[in-house]
Amino acid sequence: MKKFINDPADVVAEALRGMAAAHPDRLRIDHDQHIVYRKDGPKQGKVGLVSGGGSGHEPLHGGFVGTGMLDAACAGEMFTSPVPDQMIAATQEVDGGAGVLHIVKNYTGDVMNFEMAAELAADDAGTEVVAVVTDDDVAVQDSLFTAGRRGTGVTVVLEKVVGAAAEEGASLSDCAALAERVNASGRSMGVALTSCTVPSAGKPTFDLGEDELELGVGIHGEPGRERRPMASAREVAGMMVEPVLAELDRAGSEGAIVLLNGMGGTPLIELYLLYGEVARILEQSGVTVARSLVGNYITSLEMAGASVTVVTADDEMVRLWDAPVNTPGLRWGV
Amino acid sequence: MKKFINDPADVVAEALRGMAAAHPDRLRIDHDQHIVYRKDGPKQGKVGLVSGGGSGHEPLHGGFVGTGMLDAACAGEMFTSPVPDQMIAATQEVDGGAGVLHIVKNYTGDVMNFEMAAELAADDAGTEVVAVVTDDDVAVQDSLFTAGRRGTGVTVVLEKVVGAAAEEGASLSDCAALAERVNASGRSMGVALTSCTVPSAGKPTFDLGEDELELGVGIHGEPGRERRPMASAREVAGMMVEPVLAELDRAGSEGAIVLLNGMGGTPLIELYLLYGEVARILEQSGVTVARSLVGNYITSLEMAGASVTVVTADDEMVRLWDAPVNTPGLRWGV
Repeated sequence: MKKFINDPADVVAEALRGMAAAHPDRLRIDHDQHIVYRKDGPKQGKVGLVSGGGSGHEPLHGGFVGTGMLDAACAGEMFTSPVPDQMIAATQEVDGGAGVLHIVKNYTGDVMNFEMAAELAADDAGTEVVAVVTDDDVAVQDSLFTAGRRGTGVTVVLEKVVGAAAEEGASLSDCAALAERVNASGRSMGVALTSCTVPSAGKPTFDLGEDELELGVGIHGEPGRERRPMASAREVAGMMVEPVLAELDRAGSEGAIVLLNGMGGTPLIELYLLYGEVARILEQSGVTVARSLVGNYITSLEMAGASVTVVTADDEMVRLWDAPVNTPGLRWGV
Repeated sequence: MKKFINDPADVVAEALRGMAAAHPDRLRIDHDQHIVYRKDGPKQGKVGLVSGGGSGHEPLHGGFVGTGMLDAACAGEMFTSPVPDQMIAATQEVDGGAGVLHIVKNYTGDVMNFEMAAELAADDAGTEVVAVVTDDDVAVQDSLFTAGRRGTGVTVVLEKVVGAAAEEGASLSDCAALAERVNASGRSMGVALTSCTVPSAGKPTFDLGEDELELGVGIHGEPGRERRPMASAREVAGMMVEPVLAELDRAGSEGAIVLLNGMGGTPLIELYLLYGEVARILEQSGVTVARSLVGNYITSLEMAGASVTVVTADDEMVRLWDAPVNTPGLRWGV
């Protein structure tokens, strides 16, 4: 294992220190509790958006904190859910009187801890909390860490779109309804070419042969649908896009927001090449791409691999996607 | 070799197709000549900025084409200079009557080809061309591909700063002088933890032991200063920053623009952790960080590694750094 770390036990804490040093203009970080806050918050009267999850998926979630997106992100240990105490602190901190939306990827630990935090925050300070759970990954129905589908790329789109709505003053119930709509409109599928190594484990999470790929891999290296022989980018694009389209509700869509996401170890030139193949299949399938995003947005440490997320969007979602955002991971309009 | 490619011979062409599909709003791509143009150009009366180099360093250079940065980028084959014909075509296309600046990284092939293109463009169409050659890498004086220092991370800062000046209407001689000033104010140093594999070669460019790092590696995997035993992030940060500071002219600086760049295969969590160490050393050395950028900006395919670039900046450079930019790789203010 060769990584830019000091002690495996300190990786999350030290990465947050680096993040604070890199973004003093946009972020305020609670280094005791491992919570990333937007610098210009909390905003009175605005619905607060809180997300979080295990570390190792950067820029998700801390890199999506800022104007027009999240108010706070709780960083768990590597590939491990944050604890309820972090979520309670973040929830109370960002409550500007209009309630707080929890954005939770569907992994058993995350769901359980966010539920507990929501209850305790409500009991303790009367904070109104609604949770949305993302479950867009079509790879498997139940997995090592989930009941039902796993939450993955749609989380990025949801945080952007609902973040913009909250910034515009949407109510908690409107934000929650929009979040449910984005999640229901999005489906994802990923593929791994290599494993990744969690620093404290010191060895790869799983083994994958020199000529194999893992189709439907989870963002923690959970098993996917099957192992297949390594294939061309054209074939891999088909393996990812076809199952996504098969489960996508395309009614009422004016176009799609498409994310071609790298898992962390795949270079941009390959992601662009793969996106070209994805775009071709979408076009042939009658899906119009309204907006696209190509790069590393929800990663699995240094895993080589990629995932495709397609969200069928109406005009309102596209408008909110285009609204100004100022986070380390996504920035435009400001 | 497991990569998201089809045929190794088609990687550059197909990646450009994907780039065109991903950024139809910002880029126009000449697929015959492998030239990336900004969609809203050429602009009459504006100095045209042309860069280019071997592919495999994405987002450099094509990802820095757009409003406020480059007008055109010529993509060579993998780790191979573009040819003069591409540079001539790009130069003539972006000439809006105010002349063209060539931004060239100091590699023998690139320098020779850009020189030839400048002469031919002048002879052929009377285009006034000035070239700036970046040579910021302190690792080695002469290398496999260069006479003198290699050009690396400072190129990104230069393209941004001079791109903003050109957008504001600076003359060719002012743009060239500013470019020389940025280059002279910047120094870089990199380290590799792994090699990378050029698709057509099919095997790693060099071998590096499980417990070794290559200090001062070039962006094509050229040998650096020495092999050292793998070390902590804190030690690696010192290995990179100290030689940079030793050769940096800090006179007249109000602060530094600092790039902590990933080589392509290193995940963001490690880059942030490493940046924390870099920032600490800079602070201890009395260098004030005015602006910073952490991420993959000038890569070497899937190489695991990082480089540090420090540019001592005056207020004008920082102002131009902050000016609006709208490219796939850097975007703010629009």
